[in-house]
Amino acid sequence: MKAVVFKAPRELAVEQVDDPRIEEPLDAVIRITTANICGSDLHPYEGRAELDSGMVLGHENMGIVEEVGPAVNRIKVGDRVSVPFNLACGTCRNCNDGWTSACLRANPSGDPGAGYGYPKMGPYWGGQAELLRVPWADFNLLRLPAGNEHENDYAMLSDIFPTGYHGATMAQVSPGKTVAVFGAGPVGLMAAYSSLLKGAARVFVVDKEPDRLDLAARIGATPVDFSETDPGLAIMDATDGFGVDCGVEAVGYQAHDPSGEEHPEMVLDNLIEVVRATGHIGVVGVYVPEDPGAAYGLAKQGRLPFEYGQAFTKGISLAGGQCPVKRYNRELRDLITADRAAPSWIVSHEVPLDDAVDAYAKFDAREDGYTKVLLHP
Amino acid sequence: MKAVVFKAPRELAVEQVDDPRIEEPLDAVIRITTANICGSDLHPYEGRAELDSGMVLGHENMGIVEEVGPAVNRIKVGDRVSVPFNLACGTCRNCNDGWTSACLRANPSGDPGAGYGYPKMGPYWGGQAELLRVPWADFNLLRLPAGNEHENDYAMLSDIFPTGYHGATMAQVSPGKTVAVFGAGPVGLMAAYSSLLKGAARVFVVDKEPDRLDLAARIGATPVDFSETDPGLAIMDATDGFGVDCGVEAVGYQAHDPSGEEHPEMVLDNLIEVVRATGHIGVVGVYVPEDPGAAYGLAKQGRLPFEYGQAFTKGISLAGGQCPVKRYNRELRDLITADRAAPSWIVSHEVPLDDAVDAYAKFDAREDGYTKVLLHP
Amino acid sequence: MKAVVFKAPRELAVEQVDDPRIEEPLDAVIRITTANICGSDLHPYEGRAELDSGMVLGHENMGIVEEVGPAVNRIKVGDRVSVPFNLACGTCRNCNDGWTSACLRANPSGDPGAGYGYPKMGPYWGGQAELLRVPWADFNLLRLPAGNEHENDYAMLSDIFPTGYHGATMAQVSPGKTVAVFGAGPVGLMAAYSSLLKGAARVFVVDKEPDRLDLAARIGATPVDFSETDPGLAIMDATDGFGVDCGVEAVGYQAHDPSGEEHPEMVLDNLIEVVRATGHIGVVGVYVPEDPGAAYGLAKQGRLPFEYGQAFTKGISLAGGQCPVKRYNRELRDLITADRAAPSWIVSHEVPLDDAVDAYAKFDAREDGYTKVLLHP
Amino acid sequence: MKAVVFKAPRELAVEQVDDPRIEEPLDAVIRITTANICGSDLHPYEGRAELDSGMVLGHENMGIVEEVGPAVNRIKVGDRVSVPFNLACGTCRNCNDGWTSACLRANPSGDPGAGYGYPKMGPYWGGQAELLRVPWADFNLLRLPAGNEHENDYAMLSDIFPTGYHGATMAQVSPGKTVAVFGAGPVGLMAAYSSLLKGAARVFVVDKEPDRLDLAARIGATPVDFSETDPGLAIMDATDGFGVDCGVEAVGYQAHDPSGEEHPEMVLDNLIEVVRATGHIGVVGVYVPEDPGAAYGLAKQGRLPFEYGQAFTKGISLAGGQCPVKRYNRELRDLITADRAAPSWIVSHEVPLDDAVDAYAKFDAREDGYTKVLLHP
Repeated sequence: MKAVVFKAPRELAVEQVDDPRIEEPLDAVIRITTANICGSDLHPYEGRAELDSGMVLGHENMGIVEEVGPAVNRIKVGDRVSVPFNLACGTCRNCNDGWTSACLRANPSGDPGAGYGYPKMGPYWGGQAELLRVPWADFNLLRLPAGNEHENDYAMLSDIFPTGYHGATMAQVSPGKTVAVFGAGPVGLMAAYSSLLKGAARVFVVDKEPDRLDLAARIGATPVDFSETDPGLAIMDATDGFGVDCGVEAVGYQAHDPSGEEHPEMVLDNLIEVVRATGHIGVVGVYVPEDPGAAYGLAKQGRLPFEYGQAFTKGISLAGGQCPVKRYNRELRDLITADRAAPSWIVSHEVPLDDAVDAYAKFDAREDGYTKVLLHP
Repeated sequence: MKAVVFKAPRELAVEQVDDPRIEEPLDAVIRITTANICGSDLHPYEGRAELDSGMVLGHENMGIVEEVGPAVNRIKVGDRVSVPFNLACGTCRNCNDGWTSACLRANPSGDPGAGYGYPKMGPYWGGQAELLRVPWADFNLLRLPAGNEHENDYAMLSDIFPTGYHGATMAQVSPGKTVAVFGAGPVGLMAAYSSLLKGAARVFVVDKEPDRLDLAARIGATPVDFSETDPGLAIMDATDGFGVDCGVEAVGYQAHDPSGEEHPEMVLDNLIEVVRATGHIGVVGVYVPEDPGAAYGLAKQGRLPFEYGQAFTKGISLAGGQCPVKRYNRELRDLITADRAAPSWIVSHEVPLDDAVDAYAKFDAREDGYTKVLLHP
Repeated sequence: MKAVVFKAPRELAVEQVDDPRIEEPLDAVIRITTANICGSDLHPYEGRAELDSGMVLGHENMGIVEEVGPAVNRIKVGDRVSVPFNLACGTCRNCNDGWTSACLRANPSGDPGAGYGYPKMGPYWGGQAELLRVPWADFNLLRLPAGNEHENDYAMLSDIFPTGYHGATMAQVSPGKTVAVFGAGPVGLMAAYSSLLKGAARVFVVDKEPDRLDLAARIGATPVDFSETDPGLAIMDATDGFGVDCGVEAVGYQAHDPSGEEHPEMVLDNLIEVVRATGHIGVVGVYVPEDPGAAYGLAKQGRLPFEYGQAFTKGISLAGGQCPVKRYNRELRDLITADRAAPSWIVSHEVPLDDAVDAYAKFDAREDGYTKVLLHP
Repeated sequence: MKAVVFKAPRELAVEQVDDPRIEEPLDAVIRITTANICGSDLHPYEGRAELDSGMVLGHENMGIVEEVGPAVNRIKVGDRVSVPFNLACGTCRNCNDGWTSACLRANPSGDPGAGYGYPKMGPYWGGQAELLRVPWADFNLLRLPAGNEHENDYAMLSDIFPTGYHGATMAQVSPGKTVAVFGAGPVGLMAAYSSLLKGAARVFVVDKEPDRLDLAARIGATPVDFSETDPGLAIMDATDGFGVDCGVEAVGYQAHDPSGEEHPEMVLDNLIEVVRATGHIGVVGVYVPEDPGAAYGLAKQGRLPFEYGQAFTKGISLAGGQCPVKRYNRELRDLITADRAAPSWIVSHEVPLDDAVDAYAKFDAREDGYTKVLLHP
């Protein structure tokens, strides 16, 4: 089959590789109809996270079931399905508790959590390809309505829509709350969108890219350009000095100031400033235990000297981590099916698999308008 | 009346001061029967937190209602009552939400949260005295069974029993969970005790003081002496490498290694190591936004370079802050009344008010066995 | 002042009565700007619930603070406020727990729960009048933005918007859920509206009045006319035989079939049929412990022979009771202020106080279009 | 193998039947070490629920894994395991949500919920036998510590300990609450025991059998003999007229008065009387949609004319249904392993499989002391 193969940082190829096949009785093989490029695909692309040469990329996948193993009894050949980015066994303690993001059995390294085509997430090939092998298929796959309606909306179900929603959930967004989302990349925009779906009264979105801020404004959020204004002051002003109830971190360890200098503790500090006493912060921007490319020594060790003393004094809680997609994807699918949500408003580009290398380069360069790219093999 | 008056760091006096009186229609005046010395009273005592000279100390108070203002209609003269350390208005947004620890109206400074006899918590005198004025008495006071039964148990209701319980609650302790509590001071011991009341299967308590570790063992917790063993390794070993479900931080910003050197990020790091992926940490040890006496520059600004990158990777949440006592004290009172809890096992000394200066000195010196001191005026 | 006074069933008068005044130090007196007629006002009107002659009616009230007692310290003269229909002390155990609907101290009868101008809810006059006395004003009153913007929206905050929302909350509506609301009176419509605000994927609304079903359709709910179709079959069909996740009962003890014959167990049976196994039902339609006017003997005693055996088998839970308005009204106010909710779409008529008698008669007759009537004194 | 086979009401046989074998790739076969007789086994025994002749009885099973199918990858031959009474697929929507009690795929009838050796729960043989086939073994089986320690305690994990715990959970028991459990059969006693493990301050247990009331008293609950006293009055008196916070129904549709006459609505009425306004009732006693043997016509249809009008007025919620064992059994196992729970205090008799027929007869006759019978094949 044809696939997007990682060779080395900034060096990808679309090339022929062996077809995946049923290896275990609970496997399925999916024919990919849509696979997205994710902002976190840029971590190995930029060399900021190590990935083996030869890995097929892509963890935001959907398609049609091509073949199932002999023990698969729920999913059928021909089903249209969404594939959560977390690959999970369905029977370990964490899966039982709904934490498929920390499956104890799927990652051969023994670390909690596995996935497709991603550093440290196991040997599983990704889905930026024609075919994808999915282990424990009955547990992992979400069935979608047959046909090709809402394709780009459903394509958001494998990662960024649930991930944004997870951020809003950890931030305890509920009807009538005020929310500040830092970062208007795809996940931040989905967090803002999810906050509104959950009934938030007001949502502030902080970024410095005009096209992303425009997308935020389009769904009814209030954009805050931190290259023009101090976001803390702006949000405190707009909330009569009280701050917001809920904060979502959607930036991660590469947080940087308007000049581009990295300050990995900067956004956490911002959130602790603007979230009201007793409020909640949900962190879905990725932070890492070690980051050799970080701006300073503590950050290289995953130590972020943010204002925890202030967070404690204000009684603010922080929850964070990878989204357990399966906890949310069914309800979000149902919102799409009922025409009550349409997350594909975020999609900026759709390209065939053959154009993937170019699309990566443009997305990485944050060329104007490259917000979210979908590959249709 | 006679009261324990703060003069300057390490300089207290038991002396005559004006009797408190009804100042507002919702006030009550309480005749104190028991007022405890709290570990956090040592913060101003040691000069680590600034307090005005002349302040009457004491925020762990109980007694008999002596007088009520004309608008008080629930509490009656003669009622035996516990006084939560948080002083709260009962009608602001945070009080409505059960966050009396962040009352928006009681502290004239405008900061959320008020209290008695404590730095930055407002002008309210404490209860290490014969009498105490309690504003918004109908809202703040918890009625106790008449008489003097369980006096020392009920005395724990104003702060440390609910505070330990809050730590266990934020750590999401429930039946069958495993718990690690760092710090076996009074609050840590109460967190361990609360964890067991909530049905925890196993509770580890980490400290280096043998008398405190003995107290932990007495209630069925597993003591871990971090001056003799690496607490992370010890707990990982005892949990087959999985770690614990729940962690409680009961040490705070003066965390120090066995040699006595301060490392304010040390205990948070320990917790992130021993709490399992997707687990929860409740922080009741006090961290502060600025600490001029801290060991290093970042800590002076309340910046704690702990391993947040690892916390994110493991999907661990951190909740923390002062306990909203009123959220818990009724149920804990009922457990005492029903002989199902008896937190006075922690009390090491009971002295008259006149001996308070000496008791402070010994408690501060952590003289052997000075775990919890009660003053009976 | 002028007020709507209950004389006897179907006999009201708009007449002069004594002005209310500050009786207790925590009282306020409100100048009413809007007072709604509620469906439950028809219970005494129709003689189905006993009320003392001379009572001023009206529990859906808002206005401007005219005067405050000497102990009121949060609310100020001139504040624009919403008055929750539950009148609560703010300091009893149930108020502490957020159950202002079951305040233990406000009702002189000793029964939990008090209110204005309503049978068995205490001696408190209602607000279909120029002025209203509000006890424990600091606790009970919700401050609104000054001015007269959103008047009719905010007027929904004293009862029906929170009550509908409470139904949706007890039914555990959350994003992506399917919901069936039985009854398209004002409360049922508000439950449907609240379900959508909470993110429900699909909401069915069952009634037989075309104008009410039209209102349901207008907000995006699916109307089901039970005079034309079996509502159970219709909803099961529309959900592929699975039924809905959440059910809201907004009819109450006067449930009747299309012919008008009462069957007080009918709607509960319908809900148990259409709610899926493990689903949840929230009951905000009023059921009563005794109902001398009921259709049959068991119902006279408040005994409703509904299919509880089936409810148990399906693992369905039922929660119900009067709404504790204060638990929700702040967030709902904030949604209105932010233009994210506008519940006044339900208002059919606005009349001056002088026309109240006529308005009651037409509302009781369910004259076409009389959905919700607002009195502006 | 040898098994307890149902022939007809009150007609059982211990006889040779075909050995169960691996039928599907996810099956396991278990060698039973302990299988309990459950009170609900008496429903078919007494002819009150229809069961096919030839069915092997027994849904409270534990043992050692004898063989696994080719797709089983978590559970290993030789593992000591507890088998939840609910048989569930692990991948349907209800299983995903933790409702294994309402699995949508395991029961060939299409009804939610499947089990072993029980009416309407599918064709699956029970475990009162030497061997048991367990479908979807990786999902369903709970691993226990190797060896034979705590055998009788762990034997309670397949049904009655989690079921009692579920009752307490649905009743929202938490530290400091007061609880009334109606019914001191094994499930009621486990509900009382679970309430105490969850930290209840006081637990009342209502029954009329002295031996069962003695068992309740032994764990610290307060026995109430309803053949000697009105249980409503007794509990209201003991709670100063307030009633209890939480109620557990552990009797079911055969509720009867001291004379033995059935009144299936009686215990629900009792609970609505003694549970305080805003309190919660958890129902684990079984109610059925149709009961041809019922005392009166409405009850034959599963219609129970209990005082729902009063329940609504008090704002009491009712949750009920079969326990999803897997939601609780891991934590309860860990409490047993840590010596913090020992539910085998309830076991009255242990007999070999050959004596099962006699044991059923004596248990059905409620011969003195026959509380809980364990079969050890």
